[in-house]
Amino acid sequence: MSGPKLFLRLDLTSRVRLGPGKIRLLEAIEREGSISAAGRVLKMSYRRAWLLIDELNASFREPLVATKLGGIGGGKASVTALGRSVVRVYRAMEKEAERMVRRRSAPLLRQLRTGGDDKSKR
Amino acid sequence: MSGPKLFLRLDLTSRVRLGPGKIRLLEAIEREGSISAAGRVLKMSYRRAWLLIDELNASFREPLVATKLGGIGGGKASVTALGRSVVRVYRAMEKEAERMVRRRSAPLLRQLRTGGDDKSKR
Repeated sequence: MSGPKLFLRLDLTSRVRLGPGKIRLLEAIEREGSISAAGRVLKMSYRRAWLLIDELNASFREPLVATKLGGIGGGKASVTALGRSVVRVYRAMEKEAERMVRRRSAPLLRQLRTGGDDKSKR
Repeated sequence: MSGPKLFLRLDLTSRVRLGPGKIRLLEAIEREGSISAAGRVLKMSYRRAWLLIDELNASFREPLVATKLGGIGGGKASVTALGRSVVRVYRAMEKEAERMVRRRSAPLLRQLRTGGDDKSKR
């Protein structure tokens, strides 16, 4: 068993929400160099990926993703310094929360039914 | 602004998941004394409330909610000692995560666009 897994969603304000989906998308754009390639990797439609990035960009003083118009298939995109710092802060929060959850959930894990053990692959 | 809000979902195993919905349901059952009353308060169908409790009860060595059969409208239900300790551990995790998130998100909040301020009521 790899220990409990945690999903952290953060509402910075009631309108600006950060969760694993947007963070993974930013990471994929950084890796792939375009929104459309990132969407493909994450099995997300281009439209959905674009809307999420548009929403993020509009929420912050500066864009998290900078785009250059391209031809058919879309242009290039890169994650800005601010975008990278958003990813970094989120991942650091997640790591700290994971350590805390591992520590605090031990008494609950002992109370799980044995048949409830985690045998599935994830 | 009341600061960032956080949603914590915990997968104790891939099959045993705890999040704010189930925890609120346990708290409502403790307050209301029945699954149907708790469901009503949370605007959740009786069927859904019952399925969530059934799933939780099956996941742990002992039930989190003890039920007594009743007549029409369902019987009484109470949260067991184990159920209360699950709620307590979850709420403690949430509190600790909230403190951590408040501390770590300060640099991100400063980068939010002013028009992104939280003026809506929640």
